[in-house]
Amino acid sequence: MEAGDELDGFLEIAVDAAKQAGQIIAGSFHSHKNRRIKLARSLFLSSCKSISRITRQALSTLQLPFFIGEETSALNGTAELTDEPTWIVDPLDGTTNFVHGFPFVCVSIGLTIGKVPSVGVVYNPILNELFTAVKGRGAFLNGSKITASSQDEIYKALLATEVGTKRDKATVDETTDRINNLLYKIRSLRMTGSCALNLCGVACGRLDIFYELGFGGPWDITAGVVILQEAGGRVFDPSGGPLELMSQRIAATNSHLQDAFLEALHKD
Amino acid sequence: MEAGDELDGFLEIAVDAAKQAGQIIAGSFHSHKNRRIKLARSLFLSSCKSISRITRQALSTLQLPFFIGEETSALNGTAELTDEPTWIVDPLDGTTNFVHGFPFVCVSIGLTIGKVPSVGVVYNPILNELFTAVKGRGAFLNGSKITASSQDEIYKALLATEVGTKRDKATVDETTDRINNLLYKIRSLRMTGSCALNLCGVACGRLDIFYELGFGGPWDITAGVVILQEAGGRVFDPSGGPLELMSQRIAATNSHLQDAFLEALHKD
Repeated sequence: MEAGDELDGFLEIAVDAAKQAGQIIAGSFHSHKNRRIKLARSLFLSSCKSISRITRQALSTLQLPFFIGEETSALNGTAELTDEPTWIVDPLDGTTNFVHGFPFVCVSIGLTIGKVPSVGVVYNPILNELFTAVKGRGAFLNGSKITASSQDEIYKALLATEVGTKRDKATVDETTDRINNLLYKIRSLRMTGSCALNLCGVACGRLDIFYELGFGGPWDITAGVVILQEAGGRVFDPSGGPLELMSQRIAATNSHLQDAFLEALHKD
Repeated sequence: MEAGDELDGFLEIAVDAAKQAGQIIAGSFHSHKNRRIKLARSLFLSSCKSISRITRQALSTLQLPFFIGEETSALNGTAELTDEPTWIVDPLDGTTNFVHGFPFVCVSIGLTIGKVPSVGVVYNPILNELFTAVKGRGAFLNGSKITASSQDEIYKALLATEVGTKRDKATVDETTDRINNLLYKIRSLRMTGSCALNLCGVACGRLDIFYELGFGGPWDITAGVVILQEAGGRVFDPSGGPLELMSQRIAATNSHLQDAFLEALHKD
């Protein structure tokens, strides 16, 4: 079997898992609507459990190690990323959105081989958008090829970021100082509440640049990284160095804006 | 004819106009995708012109005065809001999103009677969401009744705001200082790039609170104000006083959070 065929096999399993998880996400999302917020916590936890269980089951047709996102604890996952093919999965990215009924939620399923993100599937079942990519074979949205934007002027760029969940004074001040500095240099700012969907947003040209610091873990970005790279975009550490999957720091651009974005991030 | 029937007649015309405009918006939105950004300016302007023309034509079955949003200049509109029934229309809210292909765009059609927002239609043709309301008769999303959230704890609230387009130092500092202050008090922050859709977001409970200063004009809020009020929400000036349609300042909450939001906005 060719290496490419093997990757296609992984993709097929990931898409199937994403669709199964997506069905549960959409069902819970819609049934939670119009609920009283105060009653929602136990519903939320039971939805998360179902989404995670379905995803895990669907991926377990191949006995691979996996990292699995926040809602389910790392207990049943692996602790260290090895060179083996490894699923890196967030069954539900955008949990705050899910609780509030804000339509940017997704399942994010990535596969690393030799620690390199090689297959990515991000599925938003509310907007019915399925982003897929296999290393070396392009990126797709609902089966149509996507490419990052051709914008090469940063002052016309649409930026995404998130404010995160840490609310100590140092973090909040750094967050708003960074935004203050960037507002002089870019066109506008969006916050969707989903790291994986922000990466896919840059991949399909809806957004031009994105950064986030302090997100949950590699499950938030592995799938999106493959999708963005295959769409012609760049991912890197916000310091300018190479992306570290385990570092909880990411910056992303189309193919034109990496240098300008780094300069904008680091120069007052 | 009853006053209610007359309002229903206005609603019918507004929905028809919104759907016609929406068809042009969706067509242009999708055909602009994958375009080279640098070629897009003339396409953008011609799309805006078509969207505006269609909306205007559809509303002109009744010879009422109107205010019409930014893209078309106020030249053909009225200059002063009177007690007469008046269309207050943004043919395309979320123009930056439209240019970038970010899916939060809409047509916003409001009607004031005696200067009071009385009919509202906001249509996002990309996500196929039609928000409608008539004063005294409830608010609807695609025909289903909507209500603002029941969240009464501000630290669990999902807030929306926008960074606007003014980038002088005083405005940018005020914008990020306000966000800095609020981040200690709320759960998280979203920025969608559409004022009308943010109001509808509070109306259907996806968002709990919203404020914006320095948006374009009354066309950004009139329809959303009716929809939110009919969904049980509150609109007011960020100072705490009554909303002034012409002031380019708005704050909005569900029925529980007005006092807590005002306190959060004004107390460091």
